Parts: sequence; structure tokens; C-alpha cells
Amino acid sequence: MISTDICIVGAGPVGLFAVFEAGLLGMRCHLVDYLPQPGGQLTEIYPKKPIYDIPGYPEILAGDLVSEQMKQIAPFNPTFTLGERVETVVKNGQNDFTVTTNDETVINCKVVVIAGGLGVFKPRKPPIDNIEDFERKGVEYMVKDPELFRDKKLVIAGGGDSALDWTIFLSKLAKQITLVHRSKRFRGAPDSVEKVFDLAEKGKIDLRLDSNVTGLTGNGTLDHAVVTNNEGWPEHIAADYFIPLFGLKPELGPIANWGLEIENDAIKVNNALDYQTNIEGIYAIGDINTYPGKLKLILCGYHEAALMAQSAWKLLNPEKKFNLKYTTVNGVNGF
Amino acid sequence: MISTDICIVGAGPVGLFAVFEAGLLGMRCHLVDYLPQPGGQLTEIYPKKPIYDIPGYPEILAGDLVSEQMKQIAPFNPTFTLGERVETVVKNGQNDFTVTTNDETVINCKVVVIAGGLGVFKPRKPPIDNIEDFERKGVEYMVKDPELFRDKKLVIAGGGDSALDWTIFLSKLAKQITLVHRSKRFRGAPDSVEKVFDLAEKGKIDLRLDSNVTGLTGNGTLDHAVVTNNEGWPEHIAADYFIPLFGLKPELGPIANWGLEIENDAIKVNNALDYQTNIEGIYAIGDINTYPGKLKLILCGYHEAALMAQSAWKLLNPEKKFNLKYTTVNGVNGF
Repeated sequence: MISTDICIVGAGPVGLFAVFEAGLLGMRCHLVDYLPQPGGQLTEIYPKKPIYDIPGYPEILAGDLVSEQMKQIAPFNPTFTLGERVETVVKNGQNDFTVTTNDETVINCKVVVIAGGLGVFKPRKPPIDNIEDFERKGVEYMVKDPELFRDKKLVIAGGGDSALDWTIFLSKLAKQITLVHRSKRFRGAPDSVEKVFDLAEKGKIDLRLDSNVTGLTGNGTLDHAVVTNNEGWPEHIAADYFIPLFGLKPELGPIANWGLEIENDAIKVNNALDYQTNIEGIYAIGDINTYPGKLKLILCGYHEAALMAQSAWKLLNPEKKFNLKYTTVNGVNGF
Repeated sequence: MISTDICIVGAGPVGLFAVFEAGLLGMRCHLVDYLPQPGGQLTEIYPKKPIYDIPGYPEILAGDLVSEQMKQIAPFNPTFTLGERVETVVKNGQNDFTVTTNDETVINCKVVVIAGGLGVFKPRKPPIDNIEDFERKGVEYMVKDPELFRDKKLVIAGGGDSALDWTIFLSKLAKQITLVHRSKRFRGAPDSVEKVFDLAEKGKIDLRLDSNVTGLTGNGTLDHAVVTNNEGWPEHIAADYFIPLFGLKPELGPIANWGLEIENDAIKVNNALDYQTNIEGIYAIGDINTYPGKLKLILCGYHEAALMAQSAWKLLNPEKKFNLKYTTVNGVNGF
């Protein structure tokens, strides 16, 4: 069993900054995230995209922001449970919670901070009846390790950046790629669109526009995808893998069952006072909370983390007087 | 007369970030600051001090943070009135204000944002009866241009970093320096303390501990400072300049007369909803405001700037629906 002062559910930019603010006040943190690495969406979904609205950074790549934040919290030695989802949060009493993950990791803590972003990201699945039968047997919703697809026959579906970028990238590795898109126009970056048309022209990929994948066949593992064009003609195309890339959809997931007040898929907090939920000792900060005037911006989550830390400290030290110390004067004293 | 959407009183880090958030929503800003350059305290008082609690910056010099923020707002072409203090703010009607400075600069705007930090910084003066008679005639509370002191006889008073650092620096320029400090121990960085004792030992400065400057003499301009030790012995020391460095004290200044609700030298805002004051259309953000749970941190001011901008936009566009656009998706489109 892990014991800590604050268990932070979600290791995105806001959860990471909470470690810093808690650390300045002498509170230790343990973070749990379903993704295999810290950084949340920034690392998983758009590490190479620039962000322009982090104060003091005219431009920073999402992945770089996470790296800098990891350096910033290093003095406070946060610990992590990654690749696991928090299933239950139980309040045993005042300043005493038990947090349990889907892999039965148990964390005992005094305060729980939910910094879960938009929740758990799940892939948007195309409406193919038997698609779930082939999951991990030929159907992959994300490209985690491109090597899996070396010398394989792939059918990729989608019309956004993700479908275009992976088609371009995998065209160097795969034996054969069929890219299926329901319209004639792509939504991705013009540059990527051009590259894909170029690959199709040179015969390096098979491009099927105005078409959908409407069925999957195989005996246990996938062997064909059925591609149907707008005129209704189905065609069986050999496929070791079918990769539908229709984006990720956030879901609140198990959080919905912890007894918290929920409104529009977000956790209600007490009107920006300290971002505490209806359960004393459980806070919600960042994109996962809601209150009047809420803006889903990373910079707002940073502020919420600071006020949460102040409030949590008071909760754990009711007899002491809170006294803000400035890092410019006092520096950062780690554990 | 200057016309703009938002007049921002105070060009510190929070006022500067307000330009960015307002700009994203298509609102133009004009900033007024009493200091001769943007950046507030960060540029004026501690440009070379590192800050450790700006999210995403494990460490950044205060002056560098201001430079980066200036780059960040460049696309929105903010305009500035510097070296002037706002004296009056008059509400002419809904979304219509007139702001006037001590130099009679007049700004017409739709929204007023007070981002005045701790107010106007004034030097802490030592209790010497006739000190004001010698101001600008030998008494200087700040070292603006060290060249002023080349080959001059100086009496410096104070025991903090400022007194130590300027003594060290000016010992290379001045003809003679007497450093007067009321106790035996200095409060500054150990390294600087050591250097000052070293300079005294080598006879490069005259160090008077357990002493105070108790009087000033001169015929029109300063010629001597009276230094009195703990035993009460006064001594006249020749001085072209007396530089008391006892720190700067913030004062709310004229802001106190604008009809705003004030509490503990700060402007009350509506419980973190949008940081609007008791006068519709006047907002207060950053260190100058107060609400339950308020933390005087730059990062909190950034958040307040974002919520203020959202609210101001709604005030100016009552018929439109607010729709948050992400810079990662839409980029930054300047004016």
C-alpha cells in the first residue's frame, strides 16, 4: 500500500503543477494516470503541437511544456502509478481516503485531488457490428508502436490529421496500405493532404475516397476489411490490421460513481473558493471541474492548483496560520 | 485623446497577460503605468532575481519573464502611456469610461482593468526631520543611474540586499562610501555580506555598524550626514549624496478615490466570478484585488486576466454567444 499526503488522479499539466504547489507547503503527492506516461493529452495526443497561451511562453510545444513541468516538480519527488485507472475513492474519515485502481493498487491519503482533464480518452469506434470481436486481433484504435505494422497489410480509416500522418509514416514500413475516407476532402493540414495524394498517385498507397469500412471478416483474427463506396459497392480488401482513426472521445469513467456532484460531465466545485467538491477533502481542478465562469484553459488549472493547495494545507493544519512564502525570496526547498 | 476597448491600469506581468487574453477575443488594450517601462516590480525592483513558481518555468529571471510576455502580446499591438499615474476614472455610461493621468493624458475606453499590483511603490524614508528639504539635492532613494555617483562622496544606509549590492557596485565608482547600518548583522545574501566586510577590511569603504543617520546638513544642497552610534555619539561625515535604501513601500494611491470597495488596501471583487469590482465595467486583477482565498501570486493573476477577458467580452457583446477557441487549434491572430 502506498501512503501519501495527496493522491492526485490525473498526471496532466494541472495535476503536475499541483505537486509543485503542494510541495511548497510541505505536502507529498502521488499521481495516478491511465496513460503510460505523465502529461495527459499534451503527451499522448498533441506532443508536437505548439501552445500559445501559456503565460510567459509566446510558443511552446505541448511535449516540452510537460518536460519543463517535470523538471519544476523534481525537487518534490512525486511518485507515480501509471497505466492504471482509479476505480474507487472511499472516504474512511476526516483526512483519510483509500484510492484503488483497476490493477488493485491501493493508495492511502489525506486529500484527493481529481485533475482528470476531460476524463479517460476512449477511441471513437466506427459503427461496424463485429468490430469488438477483432479488437487486439487485427483492430487497433491507436498506433502505440509502429513496428507492429512492419510488412503488414493495413486498412486505415479516417480523414483528419491522425489518419493522414500515420498513413504517411506507415507507408515506409507497411507492405500495403489502403486509406479509406468517407468524403472527397480531408480535414487535416494541407501539407499532409498533399503528401497523401502524392503517395496515392505514385501507387504507394491505395486511396479510397467517398467510401467506408462497413464490415470485417476473419477466422479468429482479421483477414479482410469490407470497403463500400458511395454507390454501395462492397469490396473485400486483404488486411492484417484495420486502424480506424476517428479521434479520441473523453469519458468521465468511474469518477461518475464516487458520489460527487456532476454537471455536464464535469465535477461541480464550490464557486471558485478552493475548488473543493461536495465531499470535504476531495478537490477537482483543471478541465474536469465546473463553476460559474469556468474556462477550460491550462493556465486556469494552474491557479486552481494553487488555491487547492492552500486549502488542503489548512485542512491538514487547522491549528496553524497560513503564511504565503514567495519562491523569489525563499527559493524551492524540496524533500 | 486615446481611444481603446480596454484601458489597463498597471503594466506588470498580470496587466501584460490581460492584453493577450483580451486580444484573443478581439479587444484592443492601452496600458498606463507610473514606472518608465513595462513589467512592474519585476523590471523595477528585481529583474535579476529568479522566480520559481511560474508554471512551466523551473526557474526564470523576473526580467526575462517580462520580455517573454512582451513577445507574447506583440501580435495584439498594445499601446502604452508610461511614467504617468492614473489620477481619475470616470464612468460616463454603460461601457464608456474616461481615464485621466497626472500629466493630463486622457483615455476613452469601454472597460477599465486595474492591474496595479501592490499600488504605487514609494521609498521607505528614514525618520530625519529635514530629509525632504534635500530630496533631489543630495538625497536619492533609488539608484537609477550609477553614473550620477561617480567620484562622489556617498553615505548609504540600510542592511538588506539593496544596500549591500549597491555598496559593492558603487565602491568601484565613488570617491568615498560610508555604509551605515543600525545593527551588527545584515539581512542580505551571505555572499554579499562577506564582500562588504571584505571591502571594509581593505579600507575601500567605511562601515558604521550599530549606527544611524540622524541628521543632514547643507546650504541648499547636502554636504554632511550626521551618523550617530549606539552610544549616542554624533559625527559629521562629508556627503555629496545620502542614499537611504530601506526598501519600497506600496501605496494604493489615487485608486482609493475612484468609488471602489476597498478592504485591507486591496480592491474587493465579486468572489472570483469574473473579478469585477462594485462598479460594472471596472475589473481588478492580480495582487491589487481581494476575495476569499486570494493568493498574491503572478500565476493567479494570469487566471484572473483570462476570466476578466471572457466577462468583458460578454459585456461588450451581449447579443453574441461566447465560444472558447483554443490557440493550439486556431493559432494567435493579431490585429
